[in-house]
Amino acid sequence: MSQYQAPMADFQFLLKDWINLDNHYASINAEGMDYELIMEVLAQGAKFAEEVIAPLNREGDEEGCKLKDGKVTTPSGFATAYQNYVANGWNAMLGNPDYDGQDLPYTSAVPIHEMLNSANLSWRLTTMLTESAVLAVDKHAPQWMKDQYLAKLISGEWTGTMNLTEPHAGSDLALLNTKAEPQEDGSYTITGNKIFITGGDQDWTNNIIHLVLARLPNAPKGVKGISLFLVPKFLLDENNEPGEANKLSVGSIEKKMGIKASPTCVMNYDGAKGWLVGEENNGLACMFTMMNDARFQVGLQGLGTCEASFQGALEYARERLQSRSPTGAKQPDAKADSLMHQPDVRKMLLTQKAFTEGLRALSILYAQQMDIEKYCHDHRKEQAKQIIAFLTPICKGFMTDIATEVTNLGIQIYGGHGYVREWGMEQLVRDTRIAQLYEGTNGIQAADLIGRKLTRDGGQMLNATVEMLSARINAMSNKKDIEKAQHLLHEWHQASCKLLGAEANDVAGAATDYLHYSSYVILGILWIEMADAANRSNNELIKAGKKHTCEFYIKRLLPRKDVHLSVIHAVADDLMSVSDQEFDYK
Amino acid sequence: MSQYQAPMADFQFLLKDWINLDNHYASINAEGMDYELIMEVLAQGAKFAEEVIAPLNREGDEEGCKLKDGKVTTPSGFATAYQNYVANGWNAMLGNPDYDGQDLPYTSAVPIHEMLNSANLSWRLTTMLTESAVLAVDKHAPQWMKDQYLAKLISGEWTGTMNLTEPHAGSDLALLNTKAEPQEDGSYTITGNKIFITGGDQDWTNNIIHLVLARLPNAPKGVKGISLFLVPKFLLDENNEPGEANKLSVGSIEKKMGIKASPTCVMNYDGAKGWLVGEENNGLACMFTMMNDARFQVGLQGLGTCEASFQGALEYARERLQSRSPTGAKQPDAKADSLMHQPDVRKMLLTQKAFTEGLRALSILYAQQMDIEKYCHDHRKEQAKQIIAFLTPICKGFMTDIATEVTNLGIQIYGGHGYVREWGMEQLVRDTRIAQLYEGTNGIQAADLIGRKLTRDGGQMLNATVEMLSARINAMSNKKDIEKAQHLLHEWHQASCKLLGAEANDVAGAATDYLHYSSYVILGILWIEMADAANRSNNELIKAGKKHTCEFYIKRLLPRKDVHLSVIHAVADDLMSVSDQEFDYK
Repeated sequence: MSQYQAPMADFQFLLKDWINLDNHYASINAEGMDYELIMEVLAQGAKFAEEVIAPLNREGDEEGCKLKDGKVTTPSGFATAYQNYVANGWNAMLGNPDYDGQDLPYTSAVPIHEMLNSANLSWRLTTMLTESAVLAVDKHAPQWMKDQYLAKLISGEWTGTMNLTEPHAGSDLALLNTKAEPQEDGSYTITGNKIFITGGDQDWTNNIIHLVLARLPNAPKGVKGISLFLVPKFLLDENNEPGEANKLSVGSIEKKMGIKASPTCVMNYDGAKGWLVGEENNGLACMFTMMNDARFQVGLQGLGTCEASFQGALEYARERLQSRSPTGAKQPDAKADSLMHQPDVRKMLLTQKAFTEGLRALSILYAQQMDIEKYCHDHRKEQAKQIIAFLTPICKGFMTDIATEVTNLGIQIYGGHGYVREWGMEQLVRDTRIAQLYEGTNGIQAADLIGRKLTRDGGQMLNATVEMLSARINAMSNKKDIEKAQHLLHEWHQASCKLLGAEANDVAGAATDYLHYSSYVILGILWIEMADAANRSNNELIKAGKKHTCEFYIKRLLPRKDVHLSVIHAVADDLMSVSDQEFDYK
Repeated sequence: MSQYQAPMADFQFLLKDWINLDNHYASINAEGMDYELIMEVLAQGAKFAEEVIAPLNREGDEEGCKLKDGKVTTPSGFATAYQNYVANGWNAMLGNPDYDGQDLPYTSAVPIHEMLNSANLSWRLTTMLTESAVLAVDKHAPQWMKDQYLAKLISGEWTGTMNLTEPHAGSDLALLNTKAEPQEDGSYTITGNKIFITGGDQDWTNNIIHLVLARLPNAPKGVKGISLFLVPKFLLDENNEPGEANKLSVGSIEKKMGIKASPTCVMNYDGAKGWLVGEENNGLACMFTMMNDARFQVGLQGLGTCEASFQGALEYARERLQSRSPTGAKQPDAKADSLMHQPDVRKMLLTQKAFTEGLRALSILYAQQMDIEKYCHDHRKEQAKQIIAFLTPICKGFMTDIATEVTNLGIQIYGGHGYVREWGMEQLVRDTRIAQLYEGTNGIQAADLIGRKLTRDGGQMLNATVEMLSARINAMSNKKDIEKAQHLLHEWHQASCKLLGAEANDVAGAATDYLHYSSYVILGILWIEMADAANRSNNELIKAGKKHTCEFYIKRLLPRKDVHLSVIHAVADDLMSVSDQEFDYK
């Protein structure tokens, strides 16, 4: 596969011609920020992704992680790359400036994160979870804890982890039973087993800060009895340096389908010392501060792997000479025509391209809302919050479902060679597959969207999203396009409202279809908008490419929405009336 | 994951109530064959699949194949299982009785092959290719060659391989350049490199018979200059026993995404001794005797992995307690309800079930046509040939595309545990992924269907298929169902005929959509038929289950056909007008 190259021309288009970053920063009063500065940051980020971590990706998959004498070793080069990342301040991009964070807008960080995911998903994971841990500590931890831990988590001197899942408690955290016993010194003794812990141990830093969900004695049953604890790998000494080892250990590294270079650990807490983050029994809310960020970040993983697969497939389709075009030889001097002349291959490539660029637009739209939420202190903040809440399950669920389709097309374009590990195309399929599962399966995302986000406050989050999209559509230049996009939006809004008040089983049965229906519509609107904005670009390839890809999306991908629409108001009797024994006729 | 259990109740239903095997055998004069006998064969085959090869599957993936000192070692237990298979006559099921084959009908062999694929796809591959090699030798080889090789290939004393692909020649065999030089003794000296050779070497048998495509000196360019050669690993001595080693070797074993327990070899032919099979320069036709059989067999691989994934997911959904049903606790005494109470999980399971049982019906329909072609000597033989030719790319392409969807649902139902190798769910995704690629990528299947099978002789193959389906529909008992199915058939027939005479690029751009559109329609018809036939079953679970699953398929899966239908008559300008540089804006 080709060496990864950051999609800088598309970032330029999206940030300048599509959302007009300078106007955006001016309108939200993001002082000192402008398009030129951000593009400079992105160029540096691209260099890091392309030159430092992308070259470690293929071999990292083969080498994997090892556990020996209780210590995890990550693949060759991973630790050095991390130290480079930290030294250059990348870990601190979004951090609170009171703790030496750079406090950059999301519109700069999101493209960087996409690039890291494209270059090396396994490597990226640990830093992603550290950022989520930073959010939880920053928002919920007592001051003394922030003073001891926050600056080092922001800089990346230490990494953070997220400990939710237990063997019997995955989607249903109400069932978790790790215990926290209060001690006289104000600390807690944590006992229990956690699984699927990304970066549970690594050889990158001299301490690791675990955030662990556990139950206090006599805590209420279910999710209302869960508290969050900070549990360092090494307890801090009087100088705040890692000292005595805490009573925790890595039981094993999971043997997984992909992300083999990321140490996914079984963690044993055997009376480990920890401290409460936030209020007692309010751990789930604290954890959701991490989780919501992580869900969008997982969506970006999907986007990142789409881009990597598209690049690999495009290069191969251009170079691989095989058969002649259906309309006769196009490269008569060569022994065959390149795959680029096969309509079926072009269809696969354009599917990859239309999804990748569409999802990238969605990620920038989301980042823009995150900026508004962060910088504004008027009604726009609240509106942005609503939109973010609504779009989070869509970004997580759709971006990662589509990534499995897009990366599989990448294999398909390579033919048999796509199945051979050496080329890297199948690794992308294996790596990205996890993104449909963790931080809440995509079924959980769909249930969250249709069952909570859509219905809360009579559809307020939906309405905020519709208003925002409607305003964007009305700002376009072409009347016909405005009509087309408004029609899509209206159909979706109506169909969504019709779901309010439906029966519980019908809603649950429609959840995944509703998430996909909504996503195809939103991407359609964004594509129409992009084709419009491309007229403002001074890059002729962008102008033509966005127009053509929009046409492709509308003609060949958008019609999928109707399959989903056809069942979202269906009664779920076909799902519920099948008796258990009918499933397998035994 | 659960231990594999053969779907005997469904085989019974399909063979007895759906196609009425006794009537079928009587009508084609298949002497000595009846339903009871075949079910006895199937029960023995089920035992072998369940008890001998299924238990080797998970560990085989971890252990993989090894190449040392030029010799391949397959995973522990594989060779013994093969020897058991051969000793019990399974390899000879379909073989020519003149060479000690059992000459059984396809309606008995196809269910057996499905079970082998479900139990252990990697293990099955080598035997599958031996069967294909048998067909080519039986049909095209000179008598002396049959006398020396055929009985041992049929019994399985030796295995066979298929050597087509070279590094620069995959989908386009016109480019292959392995050379064959005629020798004075009537043999040929074969020189060249082949890749992706399944079973290129193994530790199961004392000889391996390679069928190799190569070019004679001064052969015409392109596919008209390819000949087929038989090249044994060991040359036979005067007693027809393996003697001197031939000049060929294994260069390496490919490192693949899946089917790791199957030795996929790079083969080097360094002046190896071989003999011509069939006529000079007619190798491709000989190879297609193998290839057409192999394509349907690859479709069966898709079906086999669907069944295995469905079984694993169903068991997990029944046992895994997580959250409560949307309408309140269903297992109030347990700590949570099983996943079976979640409508979204049921939708995934029913998708797996509807596809698996639908594809199984398609495989039995195909087997029935193969029986007709074999046993009949009247007009029915020719009609069956036409139908088989038309259905082959559909079986290969659709069954394997759907297998990737169905096995991925299997992971999804397991949540994070589906991503951990131990459970076996992700192995099915990795293993089955190859089936979309080999024996002609699914893009090649689609091109074959729309470009050759549909158009040849003014649509004769399509018409034969439509007639056969129409007759089946008219034999149903319920008038409403007859109308519904005829409507589907009619729409498809009309839409297909409209494609005749379309522009080359438009046809090529519509190929994959046409294959999927056709497949969803055919499966819809088969489902309506099955629901009708289930009324004849004395198994109440079958009666209710087929009815409910048919309703599910019609309501939630069949509508996908319309997305494909909406573009099959489209002009491909959106595919062809994107300039090369617009693809990535560099």
